[in-house]
Amino acid sequence: MAADMANLKTRAVRLRELHHGEMLVLPNVWDAASATVVAEAGFPAVATASAAVSAMLGHPDGEGAPWQEMFAAAGRVARAVPVPVTVDAEAGYGMRPRELVDRLLDIGAVGCNVEDTDHRAGGLADAGAHAQWLAEVRSAADEAGVPLVINARVDTFLPRSGTPEPDRVAEAIRRGRLYREAGADCVYPIGVRSKDDIATLVTELPCPVNGNTGEELDLATLRELGVARVSYGPRFYRAAMADLRTSVQQLLT
Amino acid sequence: MAADMANLKTRAVRLRELHHGEMLVLPNVWDAASATVVAEAGFPAVATASAAVSAMLGHPDGEGAPWQEMFAAAGRVARAVPVPVTVDAEAGYGMRPRELVDRLLDIGAVGCNVEDTDHRAGGLADAGAHAQWLAEVRSAADEAGVPLVINARVDTFLPRSGTPEPDRVAEAIRRGRLYREAGADCVYPIGVRSKDDIATLVTELPCPVNGNTGEELDLATLRELGVARVSYGPRFYRAAMADLRTSVQQLLT
Repeated sequence: MAADMANLKTRAVRLRELHHGEMLVLPNVWDAASATVVAEAGFPAVATASAAVSAMLGHPDGEGAPWQEMFAAAGRVARAVPVPVTVDAEAGYGMRPRELVDRLLDIGAVGCNVEDTDHRAGGLADAGAHAQWLAEVRSAADEAGVPLVINARVDTFLPRSGTPEPDRVAEAIRRGRLYREAGADCVYPIGVRSKDDIATLVTELPCPVNGNTGEELDLATLRELGVARVSYGPRFYRAAMADLRTSVQQLLT
Repeated sequence: MAADMANLKTRAVRLRELHHGEMLVLPNVWDAASATVVAEAGFPAVATASAAVSAMLGHPDGEGAPWQEMFAAAGRVARAVPVPVTVDAEAGYGMRPRELVDRLLDIGAVGCNVEDTDHRAGGLADAGAHAQWLAEVRSAADEAGVPLVINARVDTFLPRSGTPEPDRVAEAIRRGRLYREAGADCVYPIGVRSKDDIATLVTELPCPVNGNTGEELDLATLRELGVARVSYGPRFYRAAMADLRTSVQQLLT
């Protein structure tokens, strides 16, 4: 157990370091085999995508799957690869901070995404309350002795957040700063599509920022703008399912 | 529970019928989303592939995964689709016949593949003993009141079976007849690559035969030869993983 904790600590430290070197690129995975593919390709860490994991399990995204199934799937990912694994933990499934930390460490994960969408009430969680919760996750991780890498997702750019378009950047900065003060390692304003917006966010947020690629934003651009981490959510999973659809339809003709 | 059993019976009857009409084509699946893709494409039944399911779970094929994980995964497949589901149950995981039947029905499956490889001893199982076990599976299904569709795999064409090449067809016929007498609905000599061999097997076996496509054997040829059922094993899963490998490698360049 002590050896396990030491190993988790080493992985967590490594995952945190990866936010302060070359841009960390994380093609998100959904099962043990996709995790193995990504690790064997040479990526230094592996991240899950909740939308892909829940689809694979047959549940809707947005905490539609029982957390037990989501954590079991993430545990299979963590067992499959030798690199640090970070889990898309959605909004934390209503867990107390210590519970979330313990369950992540139990399955061998050393990082997590937590989002500020309130899946029960709909829309965004109260920023102050969410920051407080993040601070408690940080404390719980400190108590556990593992510097869990917290990637605090800021959901103001998602249409369902209800944030008026002109306010999205400012609100993301406000939230991101609060989450950083609370102990987040990285802030992830998901769904930023404009070069100007992500550039402003990188400048204004006092910590590593997680970006996404898109029409205006290829990896080279994100790198140039100083984005620390890039993730893809369920993109590769959906591509696999789209290809499967095409392949099996051909069998019917 | 009575309603569930009635529903399972209906699905089992339907799955059996599908072996006596147009050739049944089953692009095997590995999770709930791939099952949904296949069902939505219009396939009238869904089959799992153990090699794909175990890879997805992070375990080696050949009963390398705990049966609990394999059945949980198959249960997610069965819950995801409205069509009959048949499960690749490998060699039955050392279960007693009634146990196998109950666990299949518990997860909503109405058919299974069982193979005559002995994963513990290596090589082929004794044909008579395996036929006896199949007969007991049939009896257990009868007792449960569900006409479980048994697809009896014959592994003589697999190199690991140790069957000398000239003996493969004859030994597959001998075994297939025994398994049919024991109550199998379909016989599946896996890995037959030659048109002559599959033609002989279809002629000599007194029941529906499961074939595979290959260089000499496209779907039209198999249909013409009278093959009743075609399955793909882990082919589509491996294609998805190969595509993922290519996609993520591109991110590194």
